[in-house]
Amino acid sequence: MRWARFEQDGQPTYGLVEGDTIVPVRGSPFATWEATGTRRPLAETKLLVPVVPPTFYAAGLNYAEHVREVAAKVGQPPNLPPQADIAYRANNALIADGEAIVIPADAGEQVQYEGELVAVIGRRCKNLTRETALSAVLGYTIGNDVSERAWQKGDRTLWRGKNTDTFKPMGPWIETEVDLDRLVTRVRLNGEELIAFRTNEMVFGVVDFLVRMTRYVTLHPGDVVWMGTEGATKNMKHGDVCEIEIEGIGTLRNPVVREGA
Amino acid sequence: MRWARFEQDGQPTYGLVEGDTIVPVRGSPFATWEATGTRRPLAETKLLVPVVPPTFYAAGLNYAEHVREVAAKVGQPPNLPPQADIAYRANNALIADGEAIVIPADAGEQVQYEGELVAVIGRRCKNLTRETALSAVLGYTIGNDVSERAWQKGDRTLWRGKNTDTFKPMGPWIETEVDLDRLVTRVRLNGEELIAFRTNEMVFGVVDFLVRMTRYVTLHPGDVVWMGTEGATKNMKHGDVCEIEIEGIGTLRNPVVREGA
Repeated sequence: MRWARFEQDGQPTYGLVEGDTIVPVRGSPFATWEATGTRRPLAETKLLVPVVPPTFYAAGLNYAEHVREVAAKVGQPPNLPPQADIAYRANNALIADGEAIVIPADAGEQVQYEGELVAVIGRRCKNLTRETALSAVLGYTIGNDVSERAWQKGDRTLWRGKNTDTFKPMGPWIETEVDLDRLVTRVRLNGEELIAFRTNEMVFGVVDFLVRMTRYVTLHPGDVVWMGTEGATKNMKHGDVCEIEIEGIGTLRNPVVREGA
Repeated sequence: MRWARFEQDGQPTYGLVEGDTIVPVRGSPFATWEATGTRRPLAETKLLVPVVPPTFYAAGLNYAEHVREVAAKVGQPPNLPPQADIAYRANNALIADGEAIVIPADAGEQVQYEGELVAVIGRRCKNLTRETALSAVLGYTIGNDVSERAWQKGDRTLWRGKNTDTFKPMGPWIETEVDLDRLVTRVRLNGEELIAFRTNEMVFGVVDFLVRMTRYVTLHPGDVVWMGTEGATKNMKHGDVCEIEIEGIGTLRNPVVREGA
Protein backbone atom coordinates (compact mmCIF):
# COMPACT_ATOMS: atom_id res chain seq x y z
CA MET A 1 0.00 0.00 0.00
CA ARG A 2 1.02 3.57 -0.63
CA TRP A 3 -0.02 6.18 1.99
CA ALA A 4 -0.20 9.82 0.94
CA ARG A 5 -1.08 12.79 3.15
CA PHE A 6 -2.87 15.86 1.86
CA GLU A 7 -5.22 18.61 2.98
CA GLN A 8 -8.96 18.02 2.72
CA ASP A 9 -11.57 20.36 4.21
CA GLY A 10 -8.71 22.20 5.88
CA GLN A 11 -7.45 19.11 7.72
CA PRO A 12 -4.41 16.87 7.07
CA THR A 13 -5.89 13.62 5.73
CA TYR A 14 -4.41 10.25 4.81
CA GLY A 15 -5.33 8.37 1.66
CA LEU A 16 -4.27 5.32 -0.32
CA VAL A 17 -2.65 5.95 -3.68
CA GLU A 18 -4.21 3.61 -6.27
CA GLY A 19 -2.98 4.26 -9.80
CA ASP A 20 -3.72 7.89 -10.61
CA THR A 21 -6.23 8.36 -7.80
CA ILE A 22 -6.16 8.74 -4.02
CA VAL A 23 -8.71 7.02 -1.81
CA PRO A 24 -9.09 9.20 1.32
CA VAL A 25 -9.57 7.40 4.64
CA ARG A 26 -10.96 8.24 8.03
CA GLY A 27 -8.27 7.64 10.66
CA SER A 28 -4.59 7.05 9.96
CA PRO A 29 -2.18 4.26 9.05
CA PHE A 30 -0.69 4.64 12.54
CA ALA A 31 -3.94 3.68 14.27
CA THR A 32 -7.18 2.44 12.70
CA TRP A 33 -8.67 3.60 9.43
CA GLU A 34 -11.47 2.94 6.98
CA ALA A 35 -11.92 4.07 3.39
CA THR A 36 -14.40 6.90 2.86
CA GLY A 37 -15.76 5.61 -0.43
CA THR A 38 -14.59 8.70 -2.30
CA ARG A 39 -11.71 9.14 -4.77
CA ARG A 40 -9.75 12.17 -5.94
CA PRO A 41 -7.24 12.58 -8.77
CA LEU A 42 -3.64 12.22 -7.58
CA ALA A 43 -2.33 14.70 -10.17
CA GLU A 44 -4.56 17.47 -8.80
CA THR A 45 -3.74 16.81 -5.15
CA LYS A 46 -1.06 18.84 -3.38
CA LEU A 47 0.72 16.35 -1.15
CA LEU A 48 1.92 17.16 2.38
CA VAL A 49 4.95 15.58 4.05
CA PRO A 50 3.72 12.02 4.64
CA VAL A 51 4.21 12.30 8.41
CA VAL A 52 5.38 14.88 10.97
CA PRO A 53 7.52 12.76 13.27
CA PRO A 54 7.44 12.92 17.09
CA THR A 55 11.21 12.39 16.85
CA PHE A 56 13.25 12.85 13.66
CA TYR A 57 16.19 10.41 13.61
CA ALA A 58 18.99 10.33 11.02
CA ALA A 59 21.85 7.88 10.60
CA GLY A 60 24.25 10.43 9.14
CA LEU A 61 27.46 8.81 7.90
CA ASN A 62 26.29 5.37 6.81
CA TYR A 63 27.84 4.54 3.41
CA ALA A 64 31.56 3.94 2.92
CA GLU A 65 32.20 6.20 -0.05
CA HIS A 66 30.18 9.08 1.42
CA VAL A 67 32.15 8.93 4.67
CA ARG A 68 35.35 9.54 2.68
CA GLU A 69 33.77 12.36 0.62
CA VAL A 70 32.39 14.26 3.61
CA ALA A 71 35.64 13.88 5.53
CA ALA A 72 37.51 15.48 2.62
CA LYS A 73 34.97 18.35 2.43
CA VAL A 74 35.12 19.24 6.10
CA GLY A 75 38.88 18.66 6.37
CA GLN A 76 38.88 15.72 8.77
CA PRO A 77 40.21 12.16 8.45
CA PRO A 78 37.58 9.63 7.29
CA ASN A 79 36.33 7.32 10.01
CA LEU A 80 33.75 4.64 9.40
CA PRO A 81 31.43 4.72 12.43
CA PRO A 82 32.22 1.75 14.73
CA GLN A 83 28.63 1.39 15.97
CA ALA A 84 25.13 2.48 14.97
CA ASP A 85 24.92 5.77 16.91
CA ILE A 86 21.85 7.62 15.64
CA ALA A 87 21.65 11.40 15.18
CA TYR A 88 18.78 13.87 14.77
CA ARG A 89 17.23 16.33 12.35
CA ALA A 90 14.48 18.93 13.02
CA ASN A 91 10.83 19.19 11.97
CA ASN A 92 10.96 22.89 11.08
CA ALA A 93 13.03 21.96 8.00
CA LEU A 94 10.52 19.48 6.51
CA ILE A 95 8.91 20.26 3.16
CA ALA A 96 6.79 18.09 0.87
CA ASP A 97 7.30 16.78 -2.64
CA GLY A 98 7.14 19.69 -5.09
CA GLU A 99 7.90 22.43 -2.57
CA ALA A 100 10.95 24.66 -2.98
CA ILE A 101 14.29 24.22 -1.25
CA VAL A 102 15.07 27.84 -0.30
CA ILE A 103 18.77 28.67 0.04
CA PRO A 104 19.28 31.61 2.44
CA ALA A 105 20.88 34.67 0.87
CA ASP A 106 23.97 34.35 3.09
CA ALA A 107 24.57 30.62 2.42
CA GLY A 108 27.68 29.58 0.52
CA GLU A 109 27.82 27.79 -2.83
CA GLN A 110 28.14 24.29 -1.33
CA VAL A 111 24.44 23.58 -0.74
CA GLN A 112 24.18 19.90 -1.62
CA TYR A 113 21.62 17.11 -1.95
CA GLU A 114 21.81 13.76 -0.14
CA GLY A 115 19.31 11.15 -1.34
CA GLU A 116 18.15 8.87 1.48
CA LEU A 117 15.85 5.99 2.29
CA VAL A 118 13.53 6.84 5.20
CA ALA A 119 12.04 4.18 7.49
CA VAL A 120 8.70 5.22 9.03
CA ILE A 121 7.91 3.62 12.39
CA GLY A 122 4.39 2.18 12.67
CA ARG A 123 4.02 1.32 16.33
CA ARG A 124 5.32 2.06 19.78
CA CYS A 125 8.23 -0.28 20.47
CA LYS A 126 11.27 -0.91 22.64
CA ASN A 127 13.85 -3.70 22.83
CA LEU A 128 13.37 -4.84 19.24
CA THR A 129 15.33 -7.91 18.17
CA ARG A 130 16.82 -8.68 14.77
CA GLU A 131 13.77 -10.86 14.19
CA THR A 132 11.13 -8.29 15.22
CA ALA A 133 12.77 -5.03 14.07
CA LEU A 134 11.24 -4.74 10.61
CA SER A 135 7.76 -5.46 11.98
CA ALA A 136 7.95 -2.04 13.66
CA VAL A 137 8.34 -0.30 10.28
CA LEU A 138 5.08 0.82 8.65
CA GLY A 139 6.82 1.56 5.37
CA TYR A 140 9.42 3.64 3.58
CA THR A 141 9.62 7.06 2.00
CA ILE A 142 12.41 9.22 0.53
CA GLY A 143 14.39 12.10 2.03
CA ASN A 144 16.76 14.74 0.70
CA ASP A 145 19.19 15.66 3.50
CA VAL A 146 20.10 19.08 2.07
CA SER A 147 23.34 20.36 3.61
CA GLU A 148 25.27 23.62 3.58
CA ARG A 149 28.84 22.37 3.86
CA ALA A 150 30.46 25.55 5.24
CA TRP A 151 27.97 25.70 8.12
CA GLN A 152 28.23 21.94 8.59
CA LYS A 153 31.99 22.33 8.97
CA GLY A 154 32.14 25.58 10.94
CA ASP A 155 29.25 25.54 13.42
CA ARG A 156 29.35 23.70 16.74
CA THR A 157 26.29 21.67 15.71
CA LEU A 158 24.44 20.82 12.48
CA TRP A 159 21.55 23.16 13.31
CA ARG A 160 21.62 25.42 10.24
CA GLY A 161 23.99 23.32 8.13
CA LYS A 162 21.31 20.61 8.02
CA ASN A 163 18.13 22.10 9.57
CA THR A 164 17.59 25.48 7.93
CA ASP A 165 13.90 25.80 6.94
CA THR A 166 13.14 23.76 3.74
CA PHE A 167 16.38 21.72 3.97
CA LYS A 168 14.54 18.44 4.61
CA PRO A 169 12.29 17.47 1.68
CA MET A 170 10.47 14.19 2.48
CA GLY A 171 7.97 12.20 0.40
CA PRO A 172 6.13 11.77 -1.84
CA TRP A 173 4.36 9.03 0.18
CA ILE A 174 4.93 5.98 2.39
CA GLU A 175 5.22 2.65 0.54
CA THR A 176 4.54 -0.37 2.74
CA GLU A 177 5.59 -3.13 0.31
CA VAL A 178 9.37 -2.85 -0.01
CA ASP A 179 12.16 -5.38 -0.57
CA LEU A 180 15.15 -3.50 0.83
CA ASP A 181 17.71 -5.59 -1.07
CA ARG A 182 16.19 -4.73 -4.45
CA LEU A 183 16.18 -0.95 -4.02
CA VAL A 184 18.35 1.41 -6.06
CA THR A 185 18.58 5.12 -5.19
CA ARG A 186 19.08 7.55 -8.10
CA VAL A 187 19.75 11.27 -7.78
CA ARG A 188 19.07 13.57 -10.73
CA LEU A 189 19.78 17.28 -11.03
CA ASN A 190 17.88 18.97 -13.88
CA GLY A 191 17.19 15.52 -15.32
CA GLU A 192 20.82 14.35 -15.37
CA GLU A 193 21.56 11.28 -13.23
CA LEU A 194 24.50 12.13 -10.95
CA ILE A 195 24.65 9.04 -8.81
CA ALA A 196 22.96 5.66 -8.44
CA PHE A 197 23.65 3.27 -5.59
CA ARG A 198 22.23 0.13 -4.08
CA THR A 199 20.12 1.54 -1.27
CA ASN A 200 20.68 -1.27 1.19
CA GLU A 201 24.50 -1.32 1.02
CA MET A 202 24.74 0.64 4.23
CA VAL A 203 27.42 0.44 6.91
CA PHE A 204 24.58 -0.27 9.38
CA GLY A 205 21.19 -1.33 8.02
CA VAL A 206 17.68 -0.58 9.22
CA VAL A 207 17.67 -3.64 11.48
CA ASP A 208 21.05 -2.72 13.00
CA PHE A 209 19.84 0.77 13.90
CA LEU A 210 16.41 -0.22 15.21
CA VAL A 211 17.81 -2.96 17.45
CA ARG A 212 20.52 -0.73 18.91
CA MET A 213 18.31 2.37 19.28
CA THR A 214 15.51 0.54 21.06
CA ARG A 215 17.77 -0.78 23.77
CA TYR A 216 17.66 2.78 25.14
CA VAL A 217 14.88 4.72 23.41
CA THR A 218 11.20 4.00 22.82
CA LEU A 219 10.14 4.54 19.22
CA HIS A 220 6.69 6.01 18.58
CA PRO A 221 4.26 5.78 15.65
CA GLY A 222 5.35 8.27 13.02
CA ASP A 223 8.99 8.52 14.08
CA VAL A 224 11.25 8.54 11.02
CA VAL A 225 14.80 7.21 10.60
CA TRP A 226 16.73 8.67 7.66
CA MET A 227 19.31 6.10 6.61
CA GLY A 228 22.12 8.19 5.06
CA THR A 229 23.42 8.62 1.53
CA GLU A 230 26.22 7.29 -0.65
CA GLY A 231 28.91 8.91 -2.74
CA ALA A 232 29.90 12.42 -3.71
CA THR A 233 27.29 15.18 -3.69
CA LYS A 234 27.24 18.29 -5.85
CA ASN A 235 26.09 21.86 -5.43
CA MET A 236 22.51 22.91 -6.15
CA LYS A 237 21.80 26.44 -7.33
CA HIS A 238 18.85 28.75 -8.02
CA GLY A 239 16.66 27.32 -10.77
CA ASP A 240 17.75 23.69 -10.36
CA VAL A 241 15.35 20.80 -9.84
CA CYS A 242 16.57 17.91 -7.67
CA GLU A 243 14.97 14.47 -7.91
CA ILE A 244 15.61 11.48 -5.66
CA GLU A 245 14.13 8.28 -7.05
CA ILE A 246 14.02 4.97 -5.27
CA GLU A 247 12.46 2.41 -7.60
CA GLY A 248 9.49 0.73 -5.97
CA ILE A 249 8.88 3.71 -3.68
CA GLY A 250 8.65 6.78 -5.92
CA THR A 251 10.34 10.06 -6.80
CA LEU A 252 10.86 13.07 -4.54
CA ARG A 253 11.18 16.20 -6.70
CA ASN A 254 11.97 19.70 -5.42
CA PRO A 255 12.91 22.93 -7.15
CA VAL A 256 15.71 25.06 -5.73
CA VAL A 257 15.56 28.82 -5.23
CA ARG A 258 17.98 31.23 -3.60
CA GLU A 259 16.60 34.09 -1.51
CA GLY A 260 17.05 37.37 -3.34
CA ALA A 261 18.14 35.70 -6.61
CA MET B 1 -0.18 32.63 34.93
CA ARG B 2 0.92 29.07 35.56
CA TRP B 3 -0.10 26.45 32.96
CA ALA B 4 -0.19 22.81 34.00
CA ARG B 5 -1.03 19.83 31.80
CA PHE B 6 -2.75 16.71 33.10
CA GLU B 7 -5.04 13.93 31.99
CA GLN B 8 -8.79 14.44 32.28
CA ASP B 9 -11.36 12.04 30.83
CA GLY B 10 -8.48 10.26 29.12
CA GLN B 11 -7.30 13.39 27.27
CA PRO B 12 -4.31 15.70 27.91
CA THR B 13 -5.84 18.90 29.24
CA TYR B 14 -4.44 22.31 30.17
CA GLY B 15 -5.34 24.15 33.30
CA LEU B 16 -4.34 27.23 35.29
CA VAL B 17 -2.68 26.64 38.64
CA GLU B 18 -4.26 28.93 41.22
CA GLY B 19 -2.99 28.31 44.74
CA ASP B 20 -3.66 24.67 45.58
CA THR B 21 -6.18 24.14 42.78
CA ILE B 22 -6.14 23.76 39.01
CA VAL B 23 -8.73 25.45 36.81
CA PRO B 24 -9.09 23.26 33.69
CA VAL B 25 -9.64 25.06 30.38
CA ARG B 26 -11.04 24.17 26.98
CA GLY B 27 -8.39 24.83 24.34
CA SER B 28 -4.72 25.50 25.02
CA PRO B 29 -2.35 28.34 25.91
CA PHE B 30 -0.88 27.97 22.39
CA ALA B 31 -4.18 28.87 20.70
CA THR B 32 -7.41 30.04 22.30
CA TRP B 33 -8.86 28.85 25.58
CA GLU B 34 -11.66 29.46 28.06
CA ALA B 35 -12.06 28.33 31.66
CA THR B 36 -14.47 25.45 32.20
CA GLY B 37 -15.84 26.71 35.49
CA THR B 38 -14.57 23.65 37.37
CA ARG B 39 -11.68 23.26 39.81
CA ARG B 40 -9.63 20.29 40.95
CA PRO B 41 -7.09 19.91 43.76
CA LEU B 42 -3.50 20.35 42.54
CA ALA B 43 -2.13 17.88 45.12
CA GLU B 44 -4.32 15.07 43.77
CA THR B 45 -3.54 15.75 40.11
CA LYS B 46 -0.84 13.77 38.31
CA LEU B 47 0.89 16.31 36.08
CA LEU B 48 2.07 15.53 32.53
CA VAL B 49 5.06 17.17 30.84
CA PRO B 50 3.76 20.71 30.26
CA VAL B 51 4.21 20.43 26.48
CA VAL B 52 5.40 17.87 23.92
CA PRO B 53 7.48 20.05 21.59
CA PRO B 54 7.38 19.87 17.78
CA THR B 55 11.14 20.48 17.99
CA PHE B 56 13.22 20.08 21.15
CA TYR B 57 16.10 22.57 21.19
CA ALA B 58 18.92 22.69 23.75
CA ALA B 59 21.74 25.21 24.13
CA GLY B 60 24.19 22.70 25.56
CA LEU B 61 27.38 24.38 26.78
CA ASN B 62 26.14 27.79 27.89
CA TYR B 63 27.70 28.64 31.29
CA ALA B 64 31.41 29.34 31.74
CA GLU B 65 32.15 27.08 34.70
CA HIS B 66 30.16 24.17 33.25
CA VAL B 67 32.10 24.35 29.97
CA ARG B 68 35.32 23.79 31.95
CA GLU B 69 33.82 20.97 34.01
CA VAL B 70 32.46 19.03 31.04
CA ALA B 71 35.68 19.48 29.09
CA ALA B 72 37.60 17.92 31.97
CA LYS B 73 35.14 15.00 32.20
CA VAL B 74 35.27 14.10 28.52
CA GLY B 75 39.00 14.77 28.21
CA GLN B 76 38.92 17.70 25.81
CA PRO B 77 40.18 21.29 26.12
CA PRO B 78 37.52 23.76 27.32
CA ASN B 79 36.19 26.05 24.61
CA LEU B 80 33.57 28.68 25.24
CA PRO B 81 31.23 28.56 22.23
CA PRO B 82 31.95 31.54 19.93
CA GLN B 83 28.34 31.84 18.72
CA ALA B 84 24.85 30.68 19.75
CA ASP B 85 24.71 27.38 17.80
CA ILE B 86 21.69 25.47 19.10
CA ALA B 87 21.56 21.69 19.57
CA TYR B 88 18.75 19.16 20.00
CA ARG B 89 17.27 16.66 22.43
CA ALA B 90 14.57 14.02 21.77
CA ASN B 91 10.93 13.69 22.88
CA ASN B 92 11.16 9.99 23.75
CA ALA B 93 13.22 10.96 26.80
CA LEU B 94 10.68 13.38 28.32
CA ILE B 95 9.11 12.57 31.69
CA ALA B 96 6.96 14.70 34.00
CA ASP B 97 7.49 16.01 37.51
CA GLY B 98 7.40 13.11 39.95
CA GLU B 99 8.19 10.38 37.41
CA ALA B 100 11.28 8.21 37.81
CA ILE B 101 14.60 8.72 36.05
CA VAL B 102 15.45 5.11 35.10
CA ILE B 103 19.17 4.37 34.72
CA PRO B 104 19.71 1.44 32.32
CA ALA B 105 21.39 -1.59 33.87
CA ASP B 106 24.46 -1.21 31.62
CA ALA B 107 24.98 2.52 32.28
CA GLY B 108 28.09 3.64 34.16
CA GLU B 109 28.23 5.42 37.50
CA GLN B 110 28.44 8.91 36.01
CA VAL B 111 24.73 9.55 35.46
CA GLN B 112 24.41 13.23 36.34
CA TYR B 113 21.78 15.98 36.69
CA GLU B 114 21.90 19.32 34.87
CA GLY B 115 19.35 21.88 36.10
CA GLU B 116 18.15 24.14 33.30
CA LEU B 117 15.77 26.97 32.51
CA VAL B 118 13.44 26.08 29.61
CA ALA B 119 11.88 28.71 27.34
CA VAL B 120 8.54 27.60 25.83
CA ILE B 121 7.69 29.18 22.48
CA GLY B 122 4.14 30.56 22.22
CA ARG B 123 3.72 31.41 18.56
CA ARG B 124 5.02 30.69 15.10
CA CYS B 125 7.87 33.09 14.40
CA LYS B 126 10.88 33.77 12.18
CA ASN B 127 13.39 36.63 11.99
CA LEU B 128 12.91 37.74 15.58
CA THR B 129 14.82 40.85 16.63
CA ARG B 130 16.34 41.66 20.01
CA GLU B 131 13.24 43.79 20.63
CA THR B 132 10.65 41.15 19.62
CA ALA B 133 12.36 37.93 20.76
CA LEU B 134 10.87 37.61 24.24
CA SER B 135 7.36 38.25 22.89
CA ALA B 136 7.59 34.84 21.20
CA VAL B 137 8.05 33.11 24.58
CA LEU B 138 4.83 31.93 26.24
CA GLY B 139 6.61 31.22 29.50
CA TYR B 140 9.27 29.19 31.27
CA THR B 141 9.57 25.79 32.86
CA ILE B 142 12.40 23.67 34.30
CA GLY B 143 14.42 20.84 32.78
CA ASN B 144 16.87 18.25 34.09
CA ASP B 145 19.28 17.38 31.26
CA VAL B 146 20.28 13.97 32.69
CA SER B 147 23.52 12.75 31.11
CA GLU B 148 25.52 9.53 31.14
CA ARG B 149 29.06 10.87 30.81
CA ALA B 150 30.75 7.73 29.42
CA TRP B 151 28.23 7.52 26.55
CA GLN B 152 28.41 11.29 26.09
CA LYS B 153 32.17 10.97 25.69
CA GLY B 154 32.38 7.73 23.71
CA ASP B 155 29.47 7.72 21.26
CA ARG B 156 29.50 9.56 17.93
CA THR B 157 26.40 11.53 18.99
CA LEU B 158 24.57 12.34 22.24
CA TRP B 159 21.72 9.94 21.42
CA ARG B 160 21.85 7.67 24.47
CA GLY B 161 24.20 9.83 26.58
CA LYS B 162 21.47 12.48 26.72
CA ASN B 163 18.31 10.92 25.21
CA THR B 164 17.85 7.54 26.84
CA ASP B 165 14.17 7.13 27.87
CA THR B 166 13.40 9.14 31.07
CA PHE B 167 16.60 11.26 30.82
CA LYS B 168 14.68 14.50 30.19
CA PRO B 169 12.45 15.43 33.14
CA MET B 170 10.56 18.68 32.36
CA GLY B 171 8.04 20.61 34.45
CA PRO B 172 6.20 20.99 36.71
CA TRP B 173 4.35 23.71 34.72
CA ILE B 174 4.85 26.76 32.50
CA GLU B 175 5.09 30.10 34.35
CA THR B 176 4.33 33.10 32.15
CA GLU B 177 5.34 35.88 34.57
CA VAL B 178 9.12 35.68 34.86
CA ASP B 179 11.86 38.27 35.40
CA LEU B 180 14.88 36.45 33.97
CA ASP B 181 17.41 38.59 35.85
CA ARG B 182 15.94 37.71 39.25
CA LEU B 183 16.00 33.92 38.82
CA VAL B 184 18.24 31.60 40.84
CA THR B 185 18.54 27.90 39.97
CA ARG B 186 19.11 25.48 42.86
CA VAL B 187 19.85 21.77 42.54
CA ARG B 188 19.25 19.46 45.51
CA LEU B 189 20.02 15.76 45.79
CA ASN B 190 18.20 14.04 48.65
CA GLY B 191 17.45 17.46 50.12
CA GLU B 192 21.06 18.71 50.12
CA GLU B 193 21.71 21.79 47.98
CA LEU B 194 24.64 21.00 45.69
CA ILE B 195 24.72 24.10 43.54
CA ALA B 196 22.96 27.44 43.19
CA PHE B 197 23.57 29.84 40.32
CA ARG B 198 22.09 32.97 38.81
CA THR B 199 19.97 31.51 36.03
CA ASN B 200 20.45 34.32 33.55
CA GLU B 201 24.28 34.47 33.70
CA MET B 202 24.52 32.49 30.48
CA VAL B 203 27.17 32.74 27.79
CA PHE B 204 24.32 33.42 25.34
CA GLY B 205 20.92 34.41 26.73
CA VAL B 206 17.39 33.58 25.58
CA VAL B 207 17.31 36.65 23.31
CA ASP B 208 20.70 35.78 21.74
CA PHE B 209 19.55 32.27 20.86
CA LEU B 210 16.08 33.20 19.59
CA VAL B 211 17.42 35.96 17.33
CA ARG B 212 20.15 33.78 15.84
CA MET B 213 18.01 30.65 15.49
CA THR B 214 15.15 32.42 13.74
CA ARG B 215 17.37 33.78 11.00
CA TYR B 216 17.32 30.22 9.64
CA VAL B 217 14.60 28.22 11.39
CA THR B 218 10.91 28.87 12.02
CA LEU B 219 9.88 28.31 15.62
CA HIS B 220 6.47 26.78 16.29
CA PRO B 221 4.07 26.96 19.25
CA GLY B 222 5.24 24.47 21.86
CA ASP B 223 8.86 24.31 20.77
CA VAL B 224 11.14 24.34 23.81
CA VAL B 225 14.66 25.72 24.20
CA TRP B 226 16.65 24.31 27.13
CA MET B 227 19.18 26.93 28.16
CA GLY B 228 22.04 24.90 29.67
CA THR B 229 23.38 24.48 33.19
CA GLU B 230 26.19 25.87 35.35
CA GLY B 231 28.93 24.31 37.40
CA ALA B 232 29.98 20.82 38.37
CA THR B 233 27.44 18.03 38.38
CA LYS B 234 27.46 14.90 40.53
CA ASN B 235 26.39 11.31 40.13
CA MET B 236 22.84 10.17 40.88
CA LYS B 237 22.20 6.64 42.08
CA HIS B 238 19.31 4.28 42.78
CA GLY B 239 17.12 5.67 45.55
CA ASP B 240 18.14 9.31 45.13
CA VAL B 241 15.66 12.15 44.63
CA CYS B 242 16.80 15.06 42.45
CA GLU B 243 15.14 18.47 42.71
CA ILE B 244 15.70 21.48 40.48
CA GLU B 245 14.17 24.64 41.86
CA ILE B 246 13.97 27.96 40.09
CA GLU B 247 12.38 30.49 42.42
CA GLY B 248 9.37 32.09 40.82
CA ILE B 249 8.81 29.11 38.55
CA GLY B 250 8.65 26.03 40.78
CA THR B 251 10.41 22.79 41.65
CA LEU B 252 10.97 19.79 39.37
CA ARG B 253 11.38 16.67 41.53
CA ASN B 254 12.23 13.18 40.23
CA PRO B 255 13.25 9.97 41.97
CA VAL B 256 16.07 7.89 40.51
CA VAL B 257 16.00 4.14 40.01
CA ARG B 258 18.47 1.78 38.35
CA GLU B 259 17.12 -1.09 36.28
CA GLY B 260 17.65 -4.37 38.10
CA ALA B 261 18.72 -2.68 41.36
